[in-house]
Amino acid sequence: MIKSRGYAAHSGDQPLQPFEFERRSPGEGDVQIDILYCGVCHSDLHTARNEWGNTLFPSVPGHEIVGRVSAVGSGVDRFKVGDLVGVGCMIDSCQHCSPCAEGLEQYCDNGFTGTYNGHAFGGRENTYGGYADNIVVRQEFVLRISHTENLAAVAPLLCAGITTYSPLRHWSVGPGQNVGVVGLGGLGHMGIKIARAMGAKVVLITTSPGKREDALRLGAHEVIISSDPQQMAAAANSLDFILNTVAAPHDLNALLSLLRRDGTMTLVGAPAEPHPSPDVFHLLFKRRKLAGSLIGGIAETQEMLDFCAEHNIVSDIEMIPIQQINEAYERMLKGDVRYRFVIDMGSLNG
Amino acid sequence: MIKSRGYAAHSGDQPLQPFEFERRSPGEGDVQIDILYCGVCHSDLHTARNEWGNTLFPSVPGHEIVGRVSAVGSGVDRFKVGDLVGVGCMIDSCQHCSPCAEGLEQYCDNGFTGTYNGHAFGGRENTYGGYADNIVVRQEFVLRISHTENLAAVAPLLCAGITTYSPLRHWSVGPGQNVGVVGLGGLGHMGIKIARAMGAKVVLITTSPGKREDALRLGAHEVIISSDPQQMAAAANSLDFILNTVAAPHDLNALLSLLRRDGTMTLVGAPAEPHPSPDVFHLLFKRRKLAGSLIGGIAETQEMLDFCAEHNIVSDIEMIPIQQINEAYERMLKGDVRYRFVIDMGSLNG
Repeated sequence: MIKSRGYAAHSGDQPLQPFEFERRSPGEGDVQIDILYCGVCHSDLHTARNEWGNTLFPSVPGHEIVGRVSAVGSGVDRFKVGDLVGVGCMIDSCQHCSPCAEGLEQYCDNGFTGTYNGHAFGGRENTYGGYADNIVVRQEFVLRISHTENLAAVAPLLCAGITTYSPLRHWSVGPGQNVGVVGLGGLGHMGIKIARAMGAKVVLITTSPGKREDALRLGAHEVIISSDPQQMAAAANSLDFILNTVAAPHDLNALLSLLRRDGTMTLVGAPAEPHPSPDVFHLLFKRRKLAGSLIGGIAETQEMLDFCAEHNIVSDIEMIPIQQINEAYERMLKGDVRYRFVIDMGSLNG
Repeated sequence: MIKSRGYAAHSGDQPLQPFEFERRSPGEGDVQIDILYCGVCHSDLHTARNEWGNTLFPSVPGHEIVGRVSAVGSGVDRFKVGDLVGVGCMIDSCQHCSPCAEGLEQYCDNGFTGTYNGHAFGGRENTYGGYADNIVVRQEFVLRISHTENLAAVAPLLCAGITTYSPLRHWSVGPGQNVGVVGLGGLGHMGIKIARAMGAKVVLITTSPGKREDALRLGAHEVIISSDPQQMAAAANSLDFILNTVAAPHDLNALLSLLRRDGTMTLVGAPAEPHPSPDVFHLLFKRRKLAGSLIGGIAETQEMLDFCAEHNIVSDIEMIPIQQINEAYERMLKGDVRYRFVIDMGSLNG
């Protein structure tokens, strides 16, 4: 076993606090990573506070990990000590079902193992995530980072990046298409950057007039304020695809009406309470689709990282020492972050 | 003008009764048709009783029409007197928008004109449907019937047939696929027959154990009773596509869970009250889609009629004289019809 230091929640109603624990020593196919940075995802907060009711405690969140390889098992052929690598939302899956064979480990028939709270998705035991100084992961779930600077801002690509890239790619977003991104937060701001880099015309749809300027700076061509019926009516039937990143329950009908015939709105946020039920007429009369998408596969995550490196895409972040994680959660709840907190793991020694 | 005789509702709370009215004489591009049979669709009842709140009275329902050409305008080149023809849910559309250019008149950007209550979809005036001895329709919206017998049972293909055929075709149902059909009524029984003829494995999903035998006779390979949690659990993740024909509000989650990864459930029924809101997790975790589909285009309706003629597919019907239309509505409401009423229009002279 190797020693790890990090931050953990010990119950849903307590703040995260320093936590020392052990991880397995790297086995034959394992990569040991010294963590440099870890992004702060809303799922971290949901899990730490047991808001989905499935948290195993103690819980060490964090699945937007960037670090350097510090040791490798004897069977590791893809990585060597010193390599810059990333770890995202998954650290294992069955590797033999049909989704795994297709590189879609996130849809593993036997459940993937989450980087933290792993049992929730099919793993048998708890797993400890990236709010820590190190992690051990089988090489198949380790990603290569080819960005050479701004590494802290690369970390959020491992969840926010792939969660938006995967549906944009799956629904073939590209030049000549009008793409809506709903919500400008951690996911939404990545969605704008990636959809823009894919060549689409990008429209941010937000309830907040104050986000207009930022959206245009991030790459949106247009901004629609969804609370303005005139703007919404003017944009009816205009979008080929909508990436909906909002996790709070909201009116899907108004957004569906922005889709062209045969358009798709894909949800990547998971509200704790259901959205108001969408009106079937909005689906029938334009043959529209409402879909969902979950993160992305490992091969696709590598493709996303390479795509982002090539297009100079990183996240807009605010760096924090790990000692401020509980305040950061409170600020996230108020939407007070532009657009992702990233923990500087060097602060563990602070 | 030409004289027509039929049955009409004069308000939402009165029974249909005999009605004499006039139609335009056939213009240059028009076809005049003596109606032989007209199917009875649930939309007829909704409209006659003003349940969607948009009925223009008097209302002559009926959009599953089979008849013979009795006159043609000077510019008609596709039909001649004596031809056996059909008319479905639409009798006009703008003919110049992009959906119309693609043969998808049902999604006409300017609204199609319904065969009855035409203003509801974009037409300016009321239109009188097929519960009548004749109808005048521009030739572009007239279909050729190549069935040679059982013509009364062909009538429901013009709505129930195309409404199920179009999504089955659009989502590429065929050999090697497992297709669920939800609900065994006018639409569902056509869905079973057509999906079977397309080469799919067909599974009926119903709340009614009593419909099992009929479903197998109609062509289903299997029947799942949706109120039995064990049967539903055993079928989880097994279907490539679900055609959901049920118009009453119901639990979509249980049905979505039957879909494989990347599967689609397409709704063709329009409930007056919304379905309970579907759980987003059911969409996210398998990248499933919830879609809608509306009847079908004119070219596709012709394709469906030819497909059904080739595969000896007609509807299972109960023929009624038009004098029994009000009783037929009451029986429809109780689900007491296997599986479509068709009016013998000769009864107008009875």
